[in-house]
Formats: sequence, C-alpha cells, structure tokens
Amino acid sequence: MSSENFSENFQFTNPPGWNMVWRMTAASSSQKDIPAGMIDLGIGQPSPWLLPTETIARAAAHCSSHPGRMLLSYGTEQGDRSFRAALSGFLEEIYAMPVEPAGLLVTNGASQAIDLICTLFSQAGDTIFVEEPTYFLARKIFADHRLKPIALPMDADGLIIDAMEEELGRSRPAFVYTIPTYHNPTSVCLSAGRREQMAELSRRYDLTVVADEVYHPLAYTSVPPPPLARYCASAKIISLGSFSKILAPGLRLGWLQAAPATIGHMVQCGLLDSGGGVNPFTSGVVRSAMELGLLNQNLALLKDTYSRRMQAMCAALRRRLPESVQFADPAGGFFIWLALAEGMDAGGLLSKAIERNVEFMPGFKFSSRQGLKNFLRLSFAYYDTPDLLEGVERLAAVIAEG
Amino acid sequence: MSSENFSENFQFTNPPGWNMVWRMTAASSSQKDIPAGMIDLGIGQPSPWLLPTETIARAAAHCSSHPGRMLLSYGTEQGDRSFRAALSGFLEEIYAMPVEPAGLLVTNGASQAIDLICTLFSQAGDTIFVEEPTYFLARKIFADHRLKPIALPMDADGLIIDAMEEELGRSRPAFVYTIPTYHNPTSVCLSAGRREQMAELSRRYDLTVVADEVYHPLAYTSVPPPPLARYCASAKIISLGSFSKILAPGLRLGWLQAAPATIGHMVQCGLLDSGGGVNPFTSGVVRSAMELGLLNQNLALLKDTYSRRMQAMCAALRRRLPESVQFADPAGGFFIWLALAEGMDAGGLLSKAIERNVEFMPGFKFSSRQGLKNFLRLSFAYYDTPDLLEGVERLAAVIAEG
Repeated sequence: MSSENFSENFQFTNPPGWNMVWRMTAASSSQKDIPAGMIDLGIGQPSPWLLPTETIARAAAHCSSHPGRMLLSYGTEQGDRSFRAALSGFLEEIYAMPVEPAGLLVTNGASQAIDLICTLFSQAGDTIFVEEPTYFLARKIFADHRLKPIALPMDADGLIIDAMEEELGRSRPAFVYTIPTYHNPTSVCLSAGRREQMAELSRRYDLTVVADEVYHPLAYTSVPPPPLARYCASAKIISLGSFSKILAPGLRLGWLQAAPATIGHMVQCGLLDSGGGVNPFTSGVVRSAMELGLLNQNLALLKDTYSRRMQAMCAALRRRLPESVQFADPAGGFFIWLALAEGMDAGGLLSKAIERNVEFMPGFKFSSRQGLKNFLRLSFAYYDTPDLLEGVERLAAVIAEG
Repeated sequence: MSSENFSENFQFTNPPGWNMVWRMTAASSSQKDIPAGMIDLGIGQPSPWLLPTETIARAAAHCSSHPGRMLLSYGTEQGDRSFRAALSGFLEEIYAMPVEPAGLLVTNGASQAIDLICTLFSQAGDTIFVEEPTYFLARKIFADHRLKPIALPMDADGLIIDAMEEELGRSRPAFVYTIPTYHNPTSVCLSAGRREQMAELSRRYDLTVVADEVYHPLAYTSVPPPPLARYCASAKIISLGSFSKILAPGLRLGWLQAAPATIGHMVQCGLLDSGGGVNPFTSGVVRSAMELGLLNQNLALLKDTYSRRMQAMCAALRRRLPESVQFADPAGGFFIWLALAEGMDAGGLLSKAIERNVEFMPGFKFSSRQGLKNFLRLSFAYYDTPDLLEGVERLAAVIAEG
C-alpha cells in the first residue's frame, strides 16, 4: 500500500518510524487478513496510517495526568457528565444546533447501541423496517435477536417515505432502522423534506426510528441536511453516533441521542446498571482528545484525505468503466455504490475479481430480500489513491470481461 | 472516609496529592452518590484510593510507546491474540491449570458477557436456572431479555445440585447462571464435589452453565476449589471473568472461557463482527499492565487490603451483634451475608438504618421469589477498617432496637 499525502499528513499521526512497525503489527490483530498483493475495495475502515496513534497517546497522557479524568470506577449509567459536556460541544459545531448533554447516552459504538436497542425495544419475532439496501452487519445483529426485517425501497433522495407509510398500513414494526446521511452502502442522503416527513410519521404512529448517523460528520463536497438527531425532542428518534468513523474504531466508543424519556428508560436497564455505563475509562481519554482540539484536527485530516481519494476514485471509475455501469459521486462517507447492467451478477464477478487481486462487497449482502445482485460496494477509506486507482484498473478489466 | 494502611500502600496507587483530588472528583462521576456522613455498607465496589490510577497511567504510557500494542482499528471478533496470550498466562497462575488463549473471548466485563449470552443462547419467555439468592443486577439483565428465572436453593456448600437435577426433571432451562466462588451475595463456595457434579449434569443434559467466576482471584483465607472453567473443554460451561474486581471497573474489560465450539459460535454474532471485538484499545493497555507485572502487584494489594478489612469487620460483627444474627466469615470476595432472626424484615430495618447514617443491601433484592426478607448483604470493598467498624456500631444499634 502506498501513501499519497503521506509526508504532509505524517505529523498528525505517527512519530517517525512508527508507521512501518504499525503496518507490520496491525496485520496480526486486524479483523480481516488481506492476502499480499490483493486490493480489497470492499473494506470499510480507515487506513492503518490514519489511525491516530499519536493523538491517542497524547490524550491518554493528558488524561493520566489529571486523576479526576481517569475514570476507573463504576460510572453513571448514562456516561460521564464531563465527557458528555465535551461531546455536546463537538456535536453542536457539527450539527449546527443545540445538543444537551442530558440527551446523550454513551455507548460502545453504534453496533452496541443497535444491540441494546434490540434488547430493550423489541423481542424475537418482531418485525422491523430497514432500507433496501442496508448495513450488512446491522442485519446480522437483527438476526441474532430473531427480528424480521421488512425492506423498504430507496431512491436518490434516500428512503421513500411514502412507501414506508404504505407499509405502516399493513404492519407496525418494533422500530425503523435508517442510515439517513451518507448511507451505507449507497452514500445517498435522505433529503431535508423527507427527514421532516420521517419525524412526522414517528410522531403520528408513535414509531421508534433508529437513525444511524455515524457518517454525518464526514461531509466532503456539500453540507448534508440537518441530522435526524434534530427531531429527538419532538419525535421518537434515537440517533446513533460513533468515534469509530472520526477517531478510531478500536476505542469502541460512541453515543446515542434521544428524548429524555427514552434516555431515562434506557439507563434503567441491567447492562448499564450492572456495568456502571459501558466505557468510562475510554471516555476519559477521548474527553481529553476533544478538549485538546485533537478530535477536530483528526476529523479535518480525515475529511481532507477521504475527499481527495473519493474524487480521484470517482474520476477513474468514470474513465475506466463502461457506460452501462452507473454510480453517483458520494458527497461524504466511505462508499461508492456501483450498479452493473441489469442481469449482471456481482457475486459471480467477485471470484473472477479475486483472481485478478481485487475485491469488493457484492450487493446481495446488503439485501433483506435476496436482491441487489447486480450491485457492488467500493470504499475509499482504507487505501491511498495510487492503490485505489490500481484497484479500479483491475476492476475495470474484470467487468470488461463480464 | 479514613484509610487504614494508607501510607504503606500509597506507593502502589497514587502519587502524593492525587488522593484528595481523586476523592473530590470521583464523587461527581460515580454510579451512586453517598450522602455526607453516610456509611453505605451495601456498596460492592473498590475504595476510590484502591483504583489503580498510577498503574493504568504507566500501562497506558507503555502501550502508547509501542504502537503495535495500541489497538485502534477494528480488531478480531475474539479479541487481540497477544492480549489473550498474556491473559492466559495470568489465569494459569490463578487457576493452577492450563488455559489456552484460543478458549478465551474478550468481553466488556461480566455484565456484557451475560447480556450477550442471553441474546445468543435464549429468547424471550425461556426459563433459566439461578441460585436463590443471586446477583441482583444479573436478575435485571435477565428481566430485560424477558427470561423467567427458576430459583434453586443453596446451602453452605453452594447450589444444591440434587435440587437442580430434580428441577431438570420438570423443565429444561436455556442455561443455568451460577456464581460458584465467593458467591454474590453469600460468599459461599460451591464445593469441589459439587463442581464435578455440575459438569456431569451439563454433559448429561447438554446444559449450558454460565459460571460467573469474577471473585475467584480474590482468595483470602483459603484456596478455593478449582474454577468451573476447568470443565470448559469437557462440558458446556461458559466461565466469566473480569478486570472489574482485580484492576478497575471503569475499564469495562473482561473475558469468557469456553469450549472452542462455543467460542466459534459466539464470534459469529453481529455485535462482535460489526464492532470488531468489544474493547481492543483497553485490552492493549491492560496487556501492558499484565506484562509489566502491575496486575499481579495490584491483585496482591487488593487481597491484602480486603482480607484485613474482612477479618476486622467479621470480628466486630461477632462482638457487637446479638447471637440471633448469623453469618459465616467469607474466605474471599467482597461480601458478608447476615441472617437476622426468622421473621425480621431487613427492608423495614433499612429505613431506620438510614436515619442512623448506615446502609446495607436488603436480601429481597437477591431473591427471585420475593423471599430472603430477613437477610442483608454487607461489603468491605469500599470502606477502610475504621469506617467499617463505625458502620458495624451503627448497624448493631439499629438491630438492637429491632
């Protein structure tokens, strides 16, 4: 893997010499082993060199030198107050709206938040509404809780709210799971008007809406509509956020935002009561990162890096792929969603791609009704531009061969 | 709160001056606010001065200076291999038996492990077997999952296995939840013979046994029988461990030990797949604490401190309480379980106790069948001996008044 912008960004991340060590050691503990020579465009996680080792080292040292910040005891169920205060300041800037610390609950990341919501707001056999496509691992969490997803269609403006309302005439789900901003895998944004409609439906049907807004801060080419978090006070919206996309996945730290009544209900649960919150120690370290300005610095680096990669990759795709392959340039987030010609099978293409040392995520993984066979997801989060361009070359050759 | 052994132990914990700061700041972020002047003997958590701020500061600095240890990416579902290797070394010493890293799964602590087991091994409406009494917050997690506990009797040798076998003739639970060593709240140890029987029943009935062994390392006056973890390979035992009792609750880090097939099943779940394990970053810090010998040092300090407090408290209870109040000196763990005279109501006594600035946990909280009204739980984990003795004085006065 090579590294565009490497020298100019280096000071934000690792001290000299670390990078090589990091790359060698990261492999042995990472979630997916990538074979040598393979360019896996399916991977939706930050490049090893973008992991903020220096930032976390500084934050941990700062936290360690202020004993009141080092949260080693059982904490409050909702999460440390000072941490939530710092987080609300960060979110107020990102969201351009007031965010009350009282409306925030600390989580182990969006995955744990989804898991907890399943436990507290549904039970085995319940239906839920999801988008078609939707985040493939959220699907797995729902399956672990034996929930039955009903897939709702999307278009270029996100989830089609009229279709959702029609479905509400037939069945009442335990909750709706939506990814309104820079959707995974499509990168589509739910339009501002539809966000209003979603909040209105939540109120009218007393419907819990779980809005996975983890990509919201990663805006590149335009400002997204206000987050669904905006409607937390006036509708049954639970908005999920995470430090996984803006700082480091390994921290397993995130938050959810909701109405005081919802937070009040959730903090009563056994998991939070017994554990004393879910991640006090790490929240102390990340509070230091926020207060030292390191989170904002890191986010600026990520946005700059991802934005440039995204533009280079989209240009290459447009140049190299046949016109029958369609996609929209994402305005933020991690992903490019390719539509092959109707009738093409991305799953079948994948085995040929692997022979050419390139991988992607086939669309069927994101489908709740065994569809989306001619789609595939690419990401620009892991590789630097030269590798992305090489990956596009290989992919184009595979597609050309059919 | 005063601090016996304060000066001699100080070097293990905080640099000079920290202690006051810590006490002031800890209050604002702790799970339970204790009113000024109150001695709450119900609290089952370490004294603020026993929280290893210096240890974690050193471990975090060590981890930060070795980039390969700083686990900031999505990790493997099972938890970092090097961390599990260090943990297996620690456990082999404590348990005096071989512990394979492959048989360990990293958790966010026992509470999260219980929650995950409920999700993966049961569904709403299932019955489970628990001890009477059992850990009151595990009860809450089971209730969140809408499980129906069947309470099994205990005696001085722990859960009565014959009663469990009889119950198995009537119903098959999703799993059995047991606290075999230094039981919460009774501090009783399941005898070695009954552990054998438990493993045998697990095999015979293909029964999942969740053994909450978090207090096992805190042995004071005798060596406990081998943990149920010993039978993981030969029976369907899932043994839970945690750094909450031996290092710091705020880390939210623990582990479970089980047969490879069980681990293999669990790592397939959506929560671990989507999150990339549950606590990679913290596991890197704690790996440093283990490899630097700091965990063993901390455990020695805890055992020494708790052991002396426990002996002083038991002596005071025996001296000050009427003979109608019965209890056994614990050989380890956190708790003393008092039996008031039959017909007494500990719940009613509590309001009188609060007037005298002393609190405890009334027994009914630990009951799954609204019993145990004449029992109460005390802990020696939070207060130093002078406060414990003052608490015993106050409690004795309340009991004497009836």
